[in-house]
Amino acid sequence: MSCEELNKNIKMARQNGIVQPLLTDLYQITMAYAYWKAGKVNDVAVFDLFFRTNPFQGEFTIFAGLEECLKFLVNFHYSESDIEYLMQTLPENIEPEFYGYLKDLTCKDIKLSAIEEGSVVFPRVPLLRVEGPLIVAQLLETTLLTLVNFASLMATNAARYRMVAGKNVSLLEFGLRRAQGPDGGLSASKYAYIGGFDGTSNVLAGKMFNIPVKGTHAHSFVTSFSNLNDIQSVTIRHMDTQDPCNLLELATEWRKRVSAIIDISPDEASDGELAALLSYALAFPTGFLALVDTYDVKRYNFQGLPSRHRQHNMNGHSGYNSNCGTNGTTVLNSPSIHNTYGYSTVERTLRSGLLNFCAVALALNDCGYRAVGIRIDSGDLAYLSVLARETFENIAEVLKLPWFAKLTIVASNDINEETILSLNEQGHKIDCFGIGTHLVTCQRQPALGCVYKLVEINGHPRIKLSQDVGKVTIPGHKQAYRLFGADGHALIDLLQRSSEPAPEVGQKVLCRHPFQESKRAYVSPSKVEHLYKVYWRDGKVTTMPKPLSEVRERVQSTLKTLRQDIKRNLNPTPYKVAVSDDLYNFIHDLWLQNAPIGELS
Amino acid sequence: MSCEELNKNIKMARQNGIVQPLLTDLYQITMAYAYWKAGKVNDVAVFDLFFRTNPFQGEFTIFAGLEECLKFLVNFHYSESDIEYLMQTLPENIEPEFYGYLKDLTCKDIKLSAIEEGSVVFPRVPLLRVEGPLIVAQLLETTLLTLVNFASLMATNAARYRMVAGKNVSLLEFGLRRAQGPDGGLSASKYAYIGGFDGTSNVLAGKMFNIPVKGTHAHSFVTSFSNLNDIQSVTIRHMDTQDPCNLLELATEWRKRVSAIIDISPDEASDGELAALLSYALAFPTGFLALVDTYDVKRYNFQGLPSRHRQHNMNGHSGYNSNCGTNGTTVLNSPSIHNTYGYSTVERTLRSGLLNFCAVALALNDCGYRAVGIRIDSGDLAYLSVLARETFENIAEVLKLPWFAKLTIVASNDINEETILSLNEQGHKIDCFGIGTHLVTCQRQPALGCVYKLVEINGHPRIKLSQDVGKVTIPGHKQAYRLFGADGHALIDLLQRSSEPAPEVGQKVLCRHPFQESKRAYVSPSKVEHLYKVYWRDGKVTTMPKPLSEVRERVQSTLKTLRQDIKRNLNPTPYKVAVSDDLYNFIHDLWLQNAPIGELS
Repeated sequence: MSCEELNKNIKMARQNGIVQPLLTDLYQITMAYAYWKAGKVNDVAVFDLFFRTNPFQGEFTIFAGLEECLKFLVNFHYSESDIEYLMQTLPENIEPEFYGYLKDLTCKDIKLSAIEEGSVVFPRVPLLRVEGPLIVAQLLETTLLTLVNFASLMATNAARYRMVAGKNVSLLEFGLRRAQGPDGGLSASKYAYIGGFDGTSNVLAGKMFNIPVKGTHAHSFVTSFSNLNDIQSVTIRHMDTQDPCNLLELATEWRKRVSAIIDISPDEASDGELAALLSYALAFPTGFLALVDTYDVKRYNFQGLPSRHRQHNMNGHSGYNSNCGTNGTTVLNSPSIHNTYGYSTVERTLRSGLLNFCAVALALNDCGYRAVGIRIDSGDLAYLSVLARETFENIAEVLKLPWFAKLTIVASNDINEETILSLNEQGHKIDCFGIGTHLVTCQRQPALGCVYKLVEINGHPRIKLSQDVGKVTIPGHKQAYRLFGADGHALIDLLQRSSEPAPEVGQKVLCRHPFQESKRAYVSPSKVEHLYKVYWRDGKVTTMPKPLSEVRERVQSTLKTLRQDIKRNLNPTPYKVAVSDDLYNFIHDLWLQNAPIGELS
Repeated sequence: MSCEELNKNIKMARQNGIVQPLLTDLYQITMAYAYWKAGKVNDVAVFDLFFRTNPFQGEFTIFAGLEECLKFLVNFHYSESDIEYLMQTLPENIEPEFYGYLKDLTCKDIKLSAIEEGSVVFPRVPLLRVEGPLIVAQLLETTLLTLVNFASLMATNAARYRMVAGKNVSLLEFGLRRAQGPDGGLSASKYAYIGGFDGTSNVLAGKMFNIPVKGTHAHSFVTSFSNLNDIQSVTIRHMDTQDPCNLLELATEWRKRVSAIIDISPDEASDGELAALLSYALAFPTGFLALVDTYDVKRYNFQGLPSRHRQHNMNGHSGYNSNCGTNGTTVLNSPSIHNTYGYSTVERTLRSGLLNFCAVALALNDCGYRAVGIRIDSGDLAYLSVLARETFENIAEVLKLPWFAKLTIVASNDINEETILSLNEQGHKIDCFGIGTHLVTCQRQPALGCVYKLVEINGHPRIKLSQDVGKVTIPGHKQAYRLFGADGHALIDLLQRSSEPAPEVGQKVLCRHPFQESKRAYVSPSKVEHLYKVYWRDGKVTTMPKPLSEVRERVQSTLKTLRQDIKRNLNPTPYKVAVSDDLYNFIHDLWLQNAPIGELS
């Protein structure tokens, strides 16, 4: 898509529906009126949008949301009904000319500079710089913050999951049902993909953003089948020969054979589950991935039994034994499922599901189809994945079917960063994680604290002082550069006054901590990246935002430029953000001009 | 609005934009195809939507989101482009007739029963019961969960804030910029209002849902003014006489007089701030509410100063004194602001702002307008509110202006439930809280865990067993009743099989813990409330959802029926949810049929 196309017509349903000038705090509009009334229509301002602390106790952040910001600028317009609503809502004595002013307001005089979407970014370095009429720039504040805050938080969260999971594991976002509203879910899907996820379960996100969508079936699908009579048609055509095959007969036969190979009695497996898996395989012979833990036992114990049932086991012996099946999560009308105390609890979890899956997978194989794999949604995921992998490898060897050893193992169930780290330590055999609640709500830190601060008005710099140095703003119109070392790693981000010449490759530049006098270093960069591009000027998109797939690649490529100790999960090293000597003096001269001098009394 | 109107046309921009059948997990659609392929088109199912644990370590939840669910059912329809997308996305071998089936699918055969929106609800008691074709009911799962989960979580969160804040304090939702995306912000505004907030800063929420919107100005408004020359026109017409008044002259005069009354030197106050407040008052003479902490000192200390500045104060003496102004958060071009160590830090916070506010408020008073009040956005809110209130009372007494003592004090700044409890203990004088991040992201628990479980299929009950009793589902088609005691308090929620007669007033009914045999009680209710109404049947809305304002009232009226110990913040008593003796036996007979019997070996 060209800039022109984007300028002409960016009509995402969501965009038009919600992201509009009224999606703002009322005080932006009351301030606009007060400015207008005070004759400040021609005042020009510079605002910086930045954050002060990286989220999730980490030392990096991924910048996202820029494309949405541009769409907002493109579409910025108060509709007739917006104006009517404001007239009803604001006090009666507002001068009517103000509404005329609002009605004609666009972002044509705004200039938006930004860091490229998908870049790794750091505290204090503005992500966006908004220049233009004070009133208009002020009116953009809340919406820009809303669009950048959650997008960047989500992308960062996803990137962190990707880092702990490693490159060779697939990550799927499964969080729609627990997201903060419908659009919370859509944003989560989009920015999880940008941050490094491989797909989502959210179909609308797939349609809107062209993200791969994934999903198979739920426990309820399995429990809706009671027995093998529940399948009406059991015939499938062989993939190559197109001959009809009776999948039920094949699977029943395979269940007997496999049970011998993997030492599980066929009586242990639920027929309702087999019926469900067969039905699923009949519908998706080329995409057979089955949930295998519906009929499980897990930490089964007396405490877990309802009191009425305890009497059956009140003697307190351990070492029960029976050759009957698994239980725990079970279902009515499945009398073939019985408890056993002969296996370790985690092992029992998969006995029914794994046997039934293998039976159906091998039946499919007879018909020319290769099964995809299994999903585990409960229990000890590390152990169960190892058990499943061993089972697959065992069958692969006995039956001389090498691909069977490589079947995909998907794990889901309340997974977060720590879970993955722990699973890694335990040597899991999982190929794919499905991650929901923790990812999409960013449970560990549900908001990023981006702020939007006035740094210059009518050419005069503004500094916000605070006894909390972290809250002092860096005044004036600035440029930002990322300086790289000879090994390709990013060394430091450097803020300069816009009037200064850019740092040059091989030229020594003094980088100073913005507030600590003695912290400074000379840097001779091997590469200098100018962080800002102008994305919007004169009412037009001037730099085309990258498509989602490229933004996604940029996340990984810019993360690669960070040293490992900055990215690590535990006690990461802070990345350095510095100011030039000139900017340092500018800040501190302004500060001194404004800071108090006490008097001894 | 009548049911017919709602049925005909529910076209919220948001609704049409996002809440549509594709806003779901892909596995719902793959399951639908597998069911369809297995000949289960005419299977009928009953699903319960419920949660297992109250959020926020509390013992109650507010049910919300029902109206959105109904709109979803009304509009449920796969568009041409949806079908096209699914054809591209699902495997090639899907039978084309399935897409024809999807294309014609509506919710006409679905029956939706629900608890009234805004009701206080409890774990295990289904909020929604969905009956109808298995495939359709399954396809609704994710979207219904998405719509109920966050809505109920937000409404509950808001209701908790309302409880700790008490009835006499206003609560405003200020969270848009930190919300989880644009719609996360809109949902937050809507459900915060339902839960007991009085308004929002979110203008679009105001427009869409008819919620009062509130807001005045930000710190940036204050810092954009440097001195009194920044105001172009200082004239305002007297409210009654319409005579022109010079508000600047009046305010300057009042600043001198007030400074004597409240013992603050007029030199301490920033002229830039006075210019900003005057501008705001000139724009909003009837709604003058001013942010007064832009120029503050707060915990000012050497550590807080940049190292370069420490030398000026390196002698380490305390007891500095000067008659010059405040600092901390200050701004360029405000040379009148100086530090002082003569006052307690918290007191210094408001010296500039409070003096300027009072000056402008009294100037407005001369012109026939009454100021509204102040907002404090930093510092020790309890102490500052007391200080401000004393100042107002002092001026009221000296100037014989009783209304001045009652000026509104708004507080904002990262407020959560605990902050309010602590402020209450300290005897704050705040009239209104503005609450953002913690409210809208539900920071304490960002997701409610509603689930959607199959409880009956083709007339056969389904029970999901689990070693974790909390995860066992209560099978079959059920009714729910709330039984009230003679004093009007809710005693217990009782689930019964739908075939049982409803409990009657004055008739003893045996209520049993669903899983603990010995826990049971006879209850003779003074009032019985049937919790379910049918909201949707035969493709029509059959019970009109209540308008927002009534839902909001219902929250407070149903909360009133809960005993205080169930609602308290610390260690609340769990509310009882019981099953009838009949349902108890039904559950446990099913359980026994399916649970294993071990064998001693």
